[in-house]
Formats: sequence, C-alpha cells, structure tokens
Amino acid sequence: MTTKALRFGLIGTGRIGQVHAASIAASPDAVLAWVADPYIDGARSTAARFGGTATEDVEAVIASGDVDALLVASPTPTHVDLIARAVDAGLAVLCEKPIDLDIARVEALRPRVAASGVPVAIGFNRRFDPAFASARARVAAGEIGELEQLAIISRDPSAPPADYVGISGGIFRDMTIHDFDMARFFLPEIVEVTAIGSTVFDEGARAHGDFDTAITILRAASGATVSITNSRHSAVGYDQRIEAFGANGMLQVANAGTSLVSFSGAAAVEARPPYQEFFLERYAAAYAAELGEFIKLVRGEASSSPTFDDGRAALILADAAQRSAVERTVVAVDLG
Amino acid sequence: MTTKALRFGLIGTGRIGQVHAASIAASPDAVLAWVADPYIDGARSTAARFGGTATEDVEAVIASGDVDALLVASPTPTHVDLIARAVDAGLAVLCEKPIDLDIARVEALRPRVAASGVPVAIGFNRRFDPAFASARARVAAGEIGELEQLAIISRDPSAPPADYVGISGGIFRDMTIHDFDMARFFLPEIVEVTAIGSTVFDEGARAHGDFDTAITILRAASGATVSITNSRHSAVGYDQRIEAFGANGMLQVANAGTSLVSFSGAAAVEARPPYQEFFLERYAAAYAAELGEFIKLVRGEASSSPTFDDGRAALILADAAQRSAVERTVVAVDLG
Amino acid sequence: MTTKALRFGLIGTGRIGQVHAASIAASPDAVLAWVADPYIDGARSTAARFGGTATEDVEAVIASGDVDALLVASPTPTHVDLIARAVDAGLAVLCEKPIDLDIARVEALRPRVAASGVPVAIGFNRRFDPAFASARARVAAGEIGELEQLAIISRDPSAPPADYVGISGGIFRDMTIHDFDMARFFLPEIVEVTAIGSTVFDEGARAHGDFDTAITILRAASGATVSITNSRHSAVGYDQRIEAFGANGMLQVANAGTSLVSFSGAAAVEARPPYQEFFLERYAAAYAAELGEFIKLVRGEASSSPTFDDGRAALILADAAQRSAVERTVVAVDLG
Amino acid sequence: MTTKALRFGLIGTGRIGQVHAASIAASPDAVLAWVADPYIDGARSTAARFGGTATEDVEAVIASGDVDALLVASPTPTHVDLIARAVDAGLAVLCEKPIDLDIARVEALRPRVAASGVPVAIGFNRRFDPAFASARARVAAGEIGELEQLAIISRDPSAPPADYVGISGGIFRDMTIHDFDMARFFLPEIVEVTAIGSTVFDEGARAHGDFDTAITILRAASGATVSITNSRHSAVGYDQRIEAFGANGMLQVANAGTSLVSFSGAAAVEARPPYQEFFLERYAAAYAAELGEFIKLVRGEASSSPTFDDGRAALILADAAQRSAVERTVVAVDLG
Repeated sequence: MTTKALRFGLIGTGRIGQVHAASIAASPDAVLAWVADPYIDGARSTAARFGGTATEDVEAVIASGDVDALLVASPTPTHVDLIARAVDAGLAVLCEKPIDLDIARVEALRPRVAASGVPVAIGFNRRFDPAFASARARVAAGEIGELEQLAIISRDPSAPPADYVGISGGIFRDMTIHDFDMARFFLPEIVEVTAIGSTVFDEGARAHGDFDTAITILRAASGATVSITNSRHSAVGYDQRIEAFGANGMLQVANAGTSLVSFSGAAAVEARPPYQEFFLERYAAAYAAELGEFIKLVRGEASSSPTFDDGRAALILADAAQRSAVERTVVAVDLG
Repeated sequence: MTTKALRFGLIGTGRIGQVHAASIAASPDAVLAWVADPYIDGARSTAARFGGTATEDVEAVIASGDVDALLVASPTPTHVDLIARAVDAGLAVLCEKPIDLDIARVEALRPRVAASGVPVAIGFNRRFDPAFASARARVAAGEIGELEQLAIISRDPSAPPADYVGISGGIFRDMTIHDFDMARFFLPEIVEVTAIGSTVFDEGARAHGDFDTAITILRAASGATVSITNSRHSAVGYDQRIEAFGANGMLQVANAGTSLVSFSGAAAVEARPPYQEFFLERYAAAYAAELGEFIKLVRGEASSSPTFDDGRAALILADAAQRSAVERTVVAVDLG
Repeated sequence: MTTKALRFGLIGTGRIGQVHAASIAASPDAVLAWVADPYIDGARSTAARFGGTATEDVEAVIASGDVDALLVASPTPTHVDLIARAVDAGLAVLCEKPIDLDIARVEALRPRVAASGVPVAIGFNRRFDPAFASARARVAAGEIGELEQLAIISRDPSAPPADYVGISGGIFRDMTIHDFDMARFFLPEIVEVTAIGSTVFDEGARAHGDFDTAITILRAASGATVSITNSRHSAVGYDQRIEAFGANGMLQVANAGTSLVSFSGAAAVEARPPYQEFFLERYAAAYAAELGEFIKLVRGEASSSPTFDDGRAALILADAAQRSAVERTVVAVDLG
Repeated sequence: MTTKALRFGLIGTGRIGQVHAASIAASPDAVLAWVADPYIDGARSTAARFGGTATEDVEAVIASGDVDALLVASPTPTHVDLIARAVDAGLAVLCEKPIDLDIARVEALRPRVAASGVPVAIGFNRRFDPAFASARARVAAGEIGELEQLAIISRDPSAPPADYVGISGGIFRDMTIHDFDMARFFLPEIVEVTAIGSTVFDEGARAHGDFDTAITILRAASGATVSITNSRHSAVGYDQRIEAFGANGMLQVANAGTSLVSFSGAAAVEARPPYQEFFLERYAAAYAAELGEFIKLVRGEASSSPTFDDGRAALILADAAQRSAVERTVVAVDLG
C-alpha cells in the first residue's frame, strides 16, 4: 500500500499523552512529528523516546506545516481552543474527553467544527475495547433480539485527590461521561436522564459538594433503559462490566483478570487474583485500536471513531445527570 | 424436646398453598390440621395428601379451636380480613405477600395487629434463601466493610397473562415488592424512591398502562443506594442475582444453575444449561426455611421472619415507585 | 396407578443404611417393612423413624414372606452370603458395593445369581448423580463425537482411620472401585489397566502397605483411554469431577459448591465457599434416584441399575490395578 | 544502566524464527545483528523488517565477530551441530527444543557444552508463561503445602500433516516433550515413566505407527506423581491447563480465553468464545519473557532459563515414554 503514514502533533505529555505517543510510535501508519508541552522537559523526553521535534509552543506545531493531525492530550480547559485552531488550520484532531466542562463553549464551537469539514474525534477509548466492541457488534447483529436493558458497572479503584475533585466538574462530567458515551455506543438516542448521587466515603467529594457514588438511569427513544452504577473506589480493582439484556438472551462483559491462576483451599475455592488495576492496564489494547480508527477516519475510510457530536452528547447527559441528582427530578434531554 | 408440633390451618390450596402444605407435612414441628378452600376439591385433595380436615369455610377453621396458626395462601384481597380475624382469635399468621394492594387498608389493620400481640409474619420467602441469607449475614459481619451499593437483579421467565396484569396492582406492587423487601433485608431504613418504568415488549402491560421493565433506585438513611433491575421476561430462565458492594469488597450471589455440566465445542466453551425455571424451583429450600422461622417466631424464639410492618414497608415503597415512575419525580418516603 | 409399593427389608443400619431407610420412607413406591441389624438398637431406632419391624436376624426377614426385596447395607464380608440367600428365596437385591473383596467368591456366586433370574443391583450410586448421568447421556447422544479420553478426578476429604485401611482391601478395591464403575458407565468394554500408586502423606496407608495416592489408566476396546486421579485427602472438600473429551468437544462436570455466594476483595476475587463435604452431601440426590431405578428394575421396566456383573467387573479392574501398581506393569483384563 | 544490548545472530526464519526476531527487535536489551537462512529470501525479509545482515551461511554469522549469541530456530537435525559450533566460538545459545531426537547425539555433545562454560538455554517457552510461572512460584512458596499430584492437560488444536508425523520422532518426543519439561519445572527429579498411547482418529499417526492420544504418568523422587494428558486434536482450541494439588489445596491454571464476553440464551448460559488458537497466540507473552531470561543468563544474572541438561532430561523422558507405551511396561529413568 502506498498510503503515507499520518504525521501527528502531540499536545500534552502527561500520563495519557505518553500512552498516545507510544501508540503513534508503534503504529506503521503514524509518525510522531511534533511534541508540544509548556513543560518543555516533558516534551523533550517524549520526543527523545518516541520521535518528533519538541516545543513549548502549540502554535509552532500548527504553523510547521509538518503535521496532518493533532492529538490533544492537554488539560481540559485547553481543548476547545485547540480544536478550533486545528480545524481552522485544516488539521484533523483526536481530542481527549471531555471537549469541555461547559456545554456553552462546546455549542459555540460546534458549527465551526461542522463547517470546517475536518475530521474531529473524541477520545472515548472504551468504544475500542475488544470486549465492549464485540458485545455491541453482537447486539447489533441481533444475537439477543431487541436490546431492552443495558447495565454498565463502572468503578474506579480509588477516589482522586480532593484538589482534583474541585476542578473535575463533578463525578458525572469527569467519570460517568465515559459511561454516557458507552451507553450511546449501544443506544445513541437517549431522551431522559435520572441520577441519584450519594456521598458515603470520600471527604474530598463531601468538601466540594460532589458525589462519590452514583446510579444513573437513561431512557432511550426505543424505550430501552440503561443503568450506570458508579463508585469512586473499588477494593477489588478497576470494575468495568457491561450486561446487555434483550428479548432472546444476554451478553455479559466480565472484568478483566490479571492471571489464569486460581487457588482453592480449605477456606475458599477458585479464588483468582484481583482485576486489572486501572484504565491504563485495562484499556491498553483499546488505546492502540483508537488510534487506528482515527487514522481510518482521516483517510476517509469507514471508522467507528466517536465524533465531536458524540463528545457533545456525553456532556449534555452529564449536565442533565448533575441537575437530576441535585434537584431530585427526572430530566428530559434533546441530543439533536 | 417436649415442644408440641404447631397445628396449622391452611387457607388456600393453589400453587403456593401446595408448597406450604408440603412444607408443613415435611416438618417434624408442624401438623396440617385444617385445609380451607371455597374450591372444596382443592381442599380435599390437599388434605388427602398432606393431612388435616378439609372445609370450604375459613370460619370453621378458626372456630375449631384445633389450630395454633393460619397459613394464608388465598388471593390477595382476602388477606387483610383473614389477618384481622386470626389475630382477634389469637391465632398466629403467616400470610403470603402482599398484605394488600391498598396501603389504606394496611394502615387501618396495623394498630389491631400491634395491639393483639399475636405473631404475624409476611411470606417474603427470599429472605430464607440460603445464598441471600448468607450474603446478608456476611455483610452484617462486616466482611465488605460499610455497605455502599446493593444491586438486585430480578427478572421473571415470562410475562403473566394480560388478565392478571390488570388485577396485579402493577409491576411494582406485584413483582418488585419482593425486591423491596430484599433491599430492606440489607438496608431497612429506606428514605427515598426513584423508579423508571418502561413498556417494551408486553402487550398485556401496555393494555393496562403497566410497565414490563423497570429500574428502581432506593436511598437508605445511611446514604447507601440500591438499584433494582426488573423485567417481566427472561430468556435464560429465572434471573435472581444480588451484588453487595462495600468499602472492602463485594459479595455476589450468582444465578442458580440446573446442572454441574458444561459443554465446550468449536463455537463456544463452558456453556452451561439454563438457570432455574421459576420461583418454585429456585426457592424450594427457602419455603421450607420460611416455615421453620415462623414456627420459631410463634414459639417466642429468635426469628428472622419478616413482620407485618415489613409487609407494610414493602407496599409503601411499591406505591412510591409507582408514583415516581408515573410522575417522573423522586419520592421521599417515611417507613416509621 | 395400581402398582403396589415395593416392600423392603433393610439389612444394616449404619450410616449408609440410614440413607437408604430415608429414601425408602420418602418414596411413594416403597415401604420399609423390615429392618435387620445384629445391633438391635440400631434396627429399632431405624424402624421407629422410618417404619418396619426390627429384628436382629436376617433370616427372620427372608422367612417373613413379607418383603419383595432386600437392601443390603451390612459390612462387605456379609454381601455374598446375603445375595445368595436372597436370590434363593426369590427376593430382589440392591446390595452396596463392593460385592466382596475376593473375586473368587464373586465368581462362585455369579452362576447362582444368573440362574435365579432374580434382579440384583449393586449400589454404585454415582451412576445416578444427575450431573454424571446427564454427561453420559449427552456423550451417548453424540454431542462430543466419538469419546476419546475420559478423565475422572476423585479425591476423598480425608484418609480413613488406619484400622480401616487394614481391612479395606486397599485403595483400588475400596475407593477407586467407584471410579472403575464410573469409567464403565461411559466405556463398558475395558481391556487394559495400568496403575501407579504412591504413598506420600498417610501413615495408615504406609503401615498397611497401601497407597494414599493413585493414578490409574484404563484402555477401552475402542482405543479410548480413561485416567482416574485419586487421593485419600483433599483440603478443598470432596473432589469429584469428570471430563469427557471427544472429537467435537468436551463435557465437564464441575465440583458441587455449597453456596451461590462469592466474595471479591483486595487479595482475591470470586472466591467461593468450599465444595460439598463428602458423599452423603454430594450424592444425596443420587441415592434417591438409585432407589427409584432399582424399583423400576424389579418391576421389569427399563432401568439403568448396575448389575451383578457390573459389580464383578469393577472388582476385576480393582484387582488388576492393585497388581499393576505393585508389579509395575500393564495388566490386560477380560471382563467377559 | 550502561549494559550494552546483546547482539544476536538468528539462525532460521520460519514461523518460530519470526517470533524470536520480533522479540529481539522489541527488546531494549537486544539487537538483531545477523539473520541466517539457506532460504535467503527468508533471511532478507526478516532482516529488512527486524534489522541485521542477511546471509545464507551460518558460518558467516559465527565468523563475523559481531554477535554475542545465537538464537537457533532452524530444523531439529541442525541443532546439535549449531550448539557445538557456537560454544566452541564462545557464543551463548538459545536453541529451540528439542536438542535432537537422538539421545546419543545429545549425550555426545553434553561434555563439550559443560566444558565450554558458555551459557546454553533450550527454548521451553512455557516456563515463561505468566500463569504457569506464577503457579509454580506459589507452589514453591508453600501455598498448597507439599506438592502431591500435578496434572498437565495439553492438547493441540489439530493433528500435524502425515508427512511431519513421520519425521517428528513421535508424539512423546515432538509434543509431550514440552509437558515433560513443564513437569520438571515443578518436580525436577523424575524417576519413573509410564505411558499409554492410543491411536483413535489420526490416519497420519496410524500410518507411521505413532499415537494421536497419550496419557503419561511420571513419578518424582518425592513420591509425587504427574499425569500428562495429550491429544493431537482439540475442537475447543489449544487446551493448556495445569492443576497442582497439595496437602493444603490446589492451584489451577485455566485455559486462556479470547474474549471477556459471554452469551446466555434459552439453550445455554455463560457460553464464552473458544480458547486461544495455538501456541503463537497462547504463549505470546512467554516468548518475550523467554528472551529476557536468556539475556539475564548471558549477563550472569539470576535466570530461570532451562539449561542444556533440562533439554536432555526432557528427551530422556520422551524416550522412556515411547518405550513404555510400546513395550507396555513401567520404565525407570535416571536423569543424573
């Protein structure tokens, strides 16, 4: 194939930036051309390891004329501006979630993205998890009949630092947002949100008026319902399960174990080691697949990448959940 | 032990009446003394098989002076009156759930039961399931730390006849009521109810303005939350699971299989036969244990039998869920 | 149905005699008419609980003319004589395994049993376990194609007392004999036996020149092979598994758990309570089914009861295994 | 760390040679310096992809002075000569199993390897599987008490071509040899071998007087026993399991699934996709770990790499098994 490798400018070299840099370096279809971070040491060490030119200045990347796409892994408040500048410059964008914590800024950006015709994808990595993708494909293929109930269990191993809670936008915009997108991966047309938040263990959440525990119910246009069970901590490791229930059966995605070994003794049998630690381990394969789908998107091939509008929809659902939980009411939503 | 066997009058000889008759006959601590059913053939065949005198007339049983306790397995509308007559006559009562579909009648009966001092238990059989009872005991023993989230999955194998839906009181009063009691088995102090109902497959439910699918969220005084997932059908058999999640881990109750055999072939591996068919199979051991606990209650021994007030609480929660689902709002409840 | 209930004389009221007495009492098709035990208190208490006339004297039972069948649950050395007397008197026999520890006595009895035409069944209860019976039926139905390898894992919870080891006939005649019959349940035509015994933990076995651990390989006429893995102890409880492997897949029978509850915590996930304690718990359903099949046999209906010749075959295999393990050689057998 | 990367000469560029080339290329501690294959196109394409100089001539690699170690992935008959030349030249060797099919040639080479002091490792990749390595470490740590029985189930997905069977050395030297090494990974001191071979489905095996099915029992000096269950086909995919049974419990290594998704429907529940296809998929992580341990070995660090003597021991066991199966006798072995 004569297809040229896609040249990436990576913006941000924190934990998730490193994951993307490694994916780009490992892909035969991608080249890490530029790495930008105001923390220049981060940019330099990333470029030294995975390739590309290091810079403190995003503008230099855009102006270089040397990149086809931006991979935006910088802090959330920078996303809207970076997407805007990228699409103005005709650069494709793969932007980490969320687009922004403020739906007004997202709405303001929306027509500009649409008008540009530039491919913009949002980093909802879980869509690319082989198990979730397989479950969704099998639902779509009719294996369980009409999808009636979708249950998403999503618990992080431990609560974030109290400081982070304060700027996170709250559990629905920060954590559940992934689950909102997963819900829409199966059932795109969500029309109603009901959320019950509770604060039972985390002082950080309590101090910031946030919840550490939540259950959210979504209703789809079809009448199907989705339950999302969240907790900010989980003693057993990262708890990520899905159950799709339909007229003819159900498809279940189990937690990912860390070993094939089980122990049986006098006190208990078939005990297995704990689940994967957190998202970097659990979704390692998903991050690589995400990049591949984005490259397809840029090339105009069929792609399952979540769009800018998917990112907007997840935020609308998060806002609705926050309002529902605080006002103790059911909230109708319009994702159109 | 010189303790005398308890003499029972069984009221009602339908499917569940048969189960109780068999339990009484099998118990060394119980005797089936009278069997009443206006359908006298039912009373006679039951008495022939399990013992006792058959009659069409409940009054004959109460007046006989020959029974210590009534086991009420007649249709729901008869329950309130039978409990009233039993406690007036000083007879202990084990009454099938629900007490009634109308909370006003339950409230009216409540002081009379309380004043009588007679033991009244409500037939929430699932409390006596060995697995649920074990999970609850382990939670109470602190094995998972503070209980933060309880998930109850409860799906019947198939929707009831449309005629029955019309007199059932609706999914919350008819089906979820068991789950409300199970929730209170773990977390008695429920303060808030939110329910989302949907009608996606059952014409009977649609015709009667009922739901065939529901998700209900309860909030306990402690801040712990409960999710109840219901469906009126389940292709895989009777789906009855519980997951108790706490600070230090989780306890899960799996579905009851019908065989230890699994099949592995080229298309799939470790496939097992479907789950138990319905409640008579799934809760066979629970019905026997329920009778044993009721006998303890009557004898003044420590007993885990659900009380009249437990029956009332479940109905209050069902009413609140119905209102929440119809009015699309969160409903505060007071079970005091 | 006008079929008359079968009248049983129970010989022996030890642990296994109690199981059979309870099965007879619970069956609508059986009556416990006589109970014989030289330990007359045992006979009396059994008769008091489950019915029948107590006696010290087996002869009284046979002479009574009041029984249709003997259920022989007395010590092994009495079996041959009791079977002989029963068939001479025209009484059907369900005799606990083994027929005897001495194949010469079995061979001597064989023509007498055959000539009598009286139904004689041997108590290989595992054939009636619902899981093993289902696996075998599915193999017979062709679900895995040609059966190529059968693996039987059979471990007792703990070694018997040293005194018992001395009179047990050794691990192959005492313990593996059940597995030999299970092997023949799937593959009746066994032609070769190889056994490897080891003594690694039990002083009682060492003192009596017996093994506490053994692996036995059987070859069937079809070329299919069977491995039997035995241990006289098992920390996890009674370990009873089967795996039938064929050209198109495999059927596996898992251990029977004691609860549907699993615990997941920081150290391990999905840990379940230990397996069933021992045979009385594990094979409770099998004992009841065994009686039912024997009654069918006596009535001339199709029955899966193991025959006298099945009991003889298991002993021949046990003898061959003992010789193989001691002489360290492969032993050809002829079960014809 | 200033440790220099190890320079490898890869000999052989077939399927397994490709795996090793990729591992070398992916390792920060290794460099692919030379690639030799008489099929020069194979050498060239491998070098083009993973680095190094391509040649038809092994001698050129050894004479180059540019490699620290040979990775021998050429056909079995070349192994002895290549090991000899490597150790004479002072080059470390990681040689694919088996060393040779003829124990006489292995014995002849043995003193030369020992005298050279050069590190020689044999490619028993399964020792590096994370699950097997974990199980063995936990056994060694005493988690199950004294190891009494080890069960290895090892079935290939499908029989090799008839032509290959003819030159394979037979099932024990070709396939079971991996299991012999796995047995010795847990129990190095094997003293006795008994093997039962059968030919039930494969015409290729039948034509060459080989077996397609085998069960082998090993006895260790400690009295512990090992059962190895082999089949040349498996409808469910590559079947690779281990169960280590000891005084205090058991450790089980399950088959590796291909997905976290399970399907439950009316006919069966919890059905999962088939197991891994074959060794390249199942042991992908093991091959990478194997290279890492070999590099440690060369560097003089603690390493778990199987030695030349481990390779010799596996072949002695295979020879003994072959003799046992053909002569139908138990065979004592001396691995000293």
